[in-house]
Amino acid sequence: MGETVTARVLRVLAAFSADRPELALTELSRRAELPLTTTHRLVRELTQWGALERAEDGRYRVGLRLWEVGALAPRGLGLRESAMPFLEDLYEVTKQNVQLAVLDGAEVVYLERLSGRGAVKIITRIGGRLPLHATGVGLVLLAHADAELQEQVLAAPLKRYTAKTICGPDVLRRALADVRRTGVAISDGQIELITLSVAAPVRGRRGEVVAALSVVVPAETSDARAYVPVVRAAARGISRALGAPDPVSR
Amino acid sequence: MGETVTARVLRVLAAFSADRPELALTELSRRAELPLTTTHRLVRELTQWGALERAEDGRYRVGLRLWEVGALAPRGLGLRESAMPFLEDLYEVTKQNVQLAVLDGAEVVYLERLSGRGAVKIITRIGGRLPLHATGVGLVLLAHADAELQEQVLAAPLKRYTAKTICGPDVLRRALADVRRTGVAISDGQIELITLSVAAPVRGRRGEVVAALSVVVPAETSDARAYVPVVRAAARGISRALGAPDPVSR
Repeated sequence: MGETVTARVLRVLAAFSADRPELALTELSRRAELPLTTTHRLVRELTQWGALERAEDGRYRVGLRLWEVGALAPRGLGLRESAMPFLEDLYEVTKQNVQLAVLDGAEVVYLERLSGRGAVKIITRIGGRLPLHATGVGLVLLAHADAELQEQVLAAPLKRYTAKTICGPDVLRRALADVRRTGVAISDGQIELITLSVAAPVRGRRGEVVAALSVVVPAETSDARAYVPVVRAAARGISRALGAPDPVSR
Repeated sequence: MGETVTARVLRVLAAFSADRPELALTELSRRAELPLTTTHRLVRELTQWGALERAEDGRYRVGLRLWEVGALAPRGLGLRESAMPFLEDLYEVTKQNVQLAVLDGAEVVYLERLSGRGAVKIITRIGGRLPLHATGVGLVLLAHADAELQEQVLAAPLKRYTAKTICGPDVLRRALADVRRTGVAISDGQIELITLSVAAPVRGRRGEVVAALSVVVPAETSDARAYVPVVRAAARGISRALGAPDPVSR
């Protein structure tokens, strides 16, 4: 097949998804596009090590040991650990949804989400991905991304989620300039009409934007302006905890 | 070498640890006990896929994509997701350390920890491991583990952490019986003299114990009995959310 064993191992791991966290061997073989015998051999080794686990019904799922190794990713739990006290505070003050996200490729990846029981229901999930142009955290991350990524996103079709989604490159370009100028992104009903997100950048040791923080509240009854100071303050707090230069510029 | 490529890939991943989350290629090669050329080839493929990332100083670390795959582990974030609202409540009520842990092999693995700013400092870490006999969550998990594991732990040397650590098999056997009888484990100064842990079992769909929950408070100034009802109630709440049969037995 000309493909390395490492590539096959990674394809087995990539066969699992949030929609399909448990897979029978035949499904796994089909999704990984590998022969059944190859899949069986790889799965046996991965299960022995603990990268996969076998459920009682015989299906396979991602194992605790792989979760542990993943937890060592500095851009995953490491960042989350520094941010957590500030996320907690923000959650206690707002009782809404509080999110922490990073840029990966041309998408947002959600590292953490705290949701109050009475908070507006939202579609994001820890470890889940959403596009940059339609989310508050995405606008923040895109506004501070390198020019190449910005041009790439502006040149590609911008998927419409609601009547309010920013789908024109010129509107998006202006929105990004606003984010850089004000230090905050407000995404009102762009991914779901009922939610409004207020997001701000989290900076690292060299002042570079390493993550974005947001509060997601009900669009109808919330005044976005009321959340701007608290979101910016929390984002600055995390930046300081990460060793960002002080004063943290907007 | 007679070893499969899959085993080598897994050894590269296992070379990372909480103490050493970033490794230069030579360190990685040494810790994985693989030749430098082999390590280099594997690391290149793992980095291309996103399982590893290269830091600015050239060192390697666990990548965001592996964190995402790990986040699919049903025993990791899946369990955590169901537990989170109850952990939040427990944290708000106590303002101390709240922990969720599962059994893996003969150890406790911590899935989640929420710590108040003023809470007593503790040694656990998300994704970290501790022995069963010296922690509150460990006593709960061991008390409900199969007889084989119990005998294995009782037969092995029990490491002493403090003057209060349970190190005798007879004392441990009685402690486990108490946990089963009372539905709660109290571990007072066993891993560090300054902390006291109150832990209770979380049950799954068939009533089996799938995790343990604890509150860790300062040993000197806390009355463990004050925490028993709230910890048990939170553990039952999570059990119900996981579909445990109701009424949840002790």
